[in-house]
Amino acid sequence: MQQFGVVGLSVMGKNLALNVKNHGYSVSGFSIDKPEVDALAKYEGDKLKPTYTWEEFVNSLERPRKILVMIRAGEPVDQTLAKLEKLLDKGDIIIDGGNSNFHDTNRRVKALKEKGIHFIGMGVSGGEEGALNGPALMPGGDEEAYKEVAPILEAIAAKTPTGQACVGYIGPEGSGHYVKMVHNGIEYGIMQIICEIYDIMRNVGGYSNEEMSDIFAKWDQGALQSYLVEITSKVLKQKDTLTSDYVIDHILNEASYKGTGNWMLEDAIKLGVPITVIAEAVMARFMSKATFRDDPEPEKLPGKVPSDLVDKLAKALYLAMAVSYGQGFEQMTAAAKTYNWKLHYDTIAQNWEAGCIIRSAMLQDIKSAYRANPELQNLFKAPFFDKVKKEDIDALREVLKLATDAGIPTPTLSAALNYLESIFNPNLPQNLLQGQRDYFGAHTYLRNDREGVFHTEWYEEK
Amino acid sequence: MQQFGVVGLSVMGKNLALNVKNHGYSVSGFSIDKPEVDALAKYEGDKLKPTYTWEEFVNSLERPRKILVMIRAGEPVDQTLAKLEKLLDKGDIIIDGGNSNFHDTNRRVKALKEKGIHFIGMGVSGGEEGALNGPALMPGGDEEAYKEVAPILEAIAAKTPTGQACVGYIGPEGSGHYVKMVHNGIEYGIMQIICEIYDIMRNVGGYSNEEMSDIFAKWDQGALQSYLVEITSKVLKQKDTLTSDYVIDHILNEASYKGTGNWMLEDAIKLGVPITVIAEAVMARFMSKATFRDDPEPEKLPGKVPSDLVDKLAKALYLAMAVSYGQGFEQMTAAAKTYNWKLHYDTIAQNWEAGCIIRSAMLQDIKSAYRANPELQNLFKAPFFDKVKKEDIDALREVLKLATDAGIPTPTLSAALNYLESIFNPNLPQNLLQGQRDYFGAHTYLRNDREGVFHTEWYEEK
Repeated sequence: MQQFGVVGLSVMGKNLALNVKNHGYSVSGFSIDKPEVDALAKYEGDKLKPTYTWEEFVNSLERPRKILVMIRAGEPVDQTLAKLEKLLDKGDIIIDGGNSNFHDTNRRVKALKEKGIHFIGMGVSGGEEGALNGPALMPGGDEEAYKEVAPILEAIAAKTPTGQACVGYIGPEGSGHYVKMVHNGIEYGIMQIICEIYDIMRNVGGYSNEEMSDIFAKWDQGALQSYLVEITSKVLKQKDTLTSDYVIDHILNEASYKGTGNWMLEDAIKLGVPITVIAEAVMARFMSKATFRDDPEPEKLPGKVPSDLVDKLAKALYLAMAVSYGQGFEQMTAAAKTYNWKLHYDTIAQNWEAGCIIRSAMLQDIKSAYRANPELQNLFKAPFFDKVKKEDIDALREVLKLATDAGIPTPTLSAALNYLESIFNPNLPQNLLQGQRDYFGAHTYLRNDREGVFHTEWYEEK
Repeated sequence: MQQFGVVGLSVMGKNLALNVKNHGYSVSGFSIDKPEVDALAKYEGDKLKPTYTWEEFVNSLERPRKILVMIRAGEPVDQTLAKLEKLLDKGDIIIDGGNSNFHDTNRRVKALKEKGIHFIGMGVSGGEEGALNGPALMPGGDEEAYKEVAPILEAIAAKTPTGQACVGYIGPEGSGHYVKMVHNGIEYGIMQIICEIYDIMRNVGGYSNEEMSDIFAKWDQGALQSYLVEITSKVLKQKDTLTSDYVIDHILNEASYKGTGNWMLEDAIKLGVPITVIAEAVMARFMSKATFRDDPEPEKLPGKVPSDLVDKLAKALYLAMAVSYGQGFEQMTAAAKTYNWKLHYDTIAQNWEAGCIIRSAMLQDIKSAYRANPELQNLFKAPFFDKVKKEDIDALREVLKLATDAGIPTPTLSAALNYLESIFNPNLPQNLLQGQRDYFGAHTYLRNDREGVFHTEWYEEK
């Protein structure tokens, strides 16, 4: 009998099955797409069994069965669960490793629980290569069931620089998929921030692709060490195969998206979380697809370039990245409260430390911050990040002023600064807004000097 | 027999019924809340008939019946429609004047059409006072039915400075409520923009409440003439009844919201529209409610205050307001395309010219722009607003730099500038983002020099 099963054998499912086998666990694979099973059959052996029917697949697994479903999110998952639940026994465990919406996962956890089947919604990050050699895994759902599958998941997961597995129980219901959604939103944020830094570097600093590639490579050796900074360096120096130019100069500047960043923004609106950097990053992708981007090359505005531009850009990037992570954690904190989930933020940071797109040295500091204070309400309330803010905010301000003078758009860098200027600010000007609302709609207001709800008879109201 | 009926007689319904009567049309009123009917009965006469049962109400109306429903949006509307459809005849007309979600209105238009009843979803703006003396009305649904009720709606609507009624057929299905939702989103944008201008004025300029009130009052006499600028002046000079101070200095700076701005943002995400000013305004309200706004009074940063600060603030406010409107119209254009609605943007601008919260002199220029080119894809492609952008963008830049130096958050002013720097910009940096996506996920990219879909074998990919 096999110890683990995988349903869905396109590249992600196949690579995860091979990853399980490579770590010494026996695995069965099944797909409704026969050629996918044939492709897996090339690796057939003691530890790997291709199967060709639902029954053969299910009957090949030891109990309690542990089945990873790796198929397209949405309706296909429900169809697969309908098939499986007829064949499974009480106590069996299904893991959905696709990019499912957390609302769907909430529903499925509940529905399968009623049938005695454990359901784990698990975010998986790291792409094809991560699936084979070590992904970041974010499993949520039944904690007892997680313990059953933990040894296998810990074996196949990516490992942090200090050797810890990038997997750990996230929380109940759809919280695993929720955390993956937040991961993707943070990814949108950091990618857009890097684009803006690149735009300032090339237009204000006048650096070449090679020079910029070297700057990002150097940054990747220090505090900014991260997968996205690393690959930025590589993308910038890649030569084109169709021209003699750098490929970066021939890639069309219209950003595509699949939507999990958008989901995060939708839930932020429901929860009332100000994830402005991520909102601007989502909308910067929309903006790049506008059909009227046809202005003549903008006139370069004059501006003094400081001699330490690169150093200032490094600080601005570091601080804005921290805001992107911080807003992600702020949203998870709000979700935990609203959805009544107990989340372990240090575990989440650790899950992201390797194997996934947003892995970075900074996540170690985030992990430490939440380990020191599991009840931390905002990342910048942690001493480390408070210090980062104080040390780097002037550089961010200066970078923004340079971009402003040069006519370079900085939606996420601006949002990062405005967030830092707002979130702890006791003197925000929304007293005026509340006055306006009371004036035109009698919506009432609270006061800063006494308890109660107040309405003013505005003297020229009529 | 009465010419018009109103269901729901809380202050909005009652005032609209009185408005109808005051314009010479006979009206019946009904509410399931008897005291509301009793309150209306004080105005009983030839032209106004209070009724106490559904049957009495329906039977009092001439055919085709014209019934305005003014009750809380959501489930109560469906309950009311279920009651009415049993008593009405084919060809009768129901108007929902509440703040219904456009998805609900789409559904109701379709369901009632199958029963031969016309349904009009109508946005109503202007609050209690507007309801009585002239609201802005945004009716969508069946155009033939609209023509039946147009004379009454035109009579009761607000009038533009040139005497036109602030009502006109918007378009099919839920487009009337959609336009009201966009109205509210623009309102969020402009209110937050004004808050930021006020924050800079008091903190950078050092102006007193009286001085600021005078500045806004003066602005209201010129190009910035608008209801929100006008009431800002009034709010700023209102004296408190509980202290000897100005009330503005005792209103708690935490912004409340009811959610129609949020709905607009949710649909923007679905449609892919970059309404960044409105997104930042929604999230600035979230931000103002953060529980950790407890930093010590921030240290004032040094900064040179230009002698023409007020003039620069006026220009920044004018341009940012234009962006707020422009993003609203951009979203309506996208919605019209996706939902297959034919919208008349000049009519929409005219509907907003009086009676509603976002009424302003600028709407005349917006109306002219869409009248000159009904296919206008972006407000700033119109010669008038292109000129505004060119004339005022430097003032907006300078204001932002002053705020940056002073540590004042400017989420919507920053978003307005970044939008203007992005939306027509052929050199956005998202070529890098597409390169990153192709690197880590083989998502492919388009090129700027040839047709087709491309993927690079990134040389250090593995």
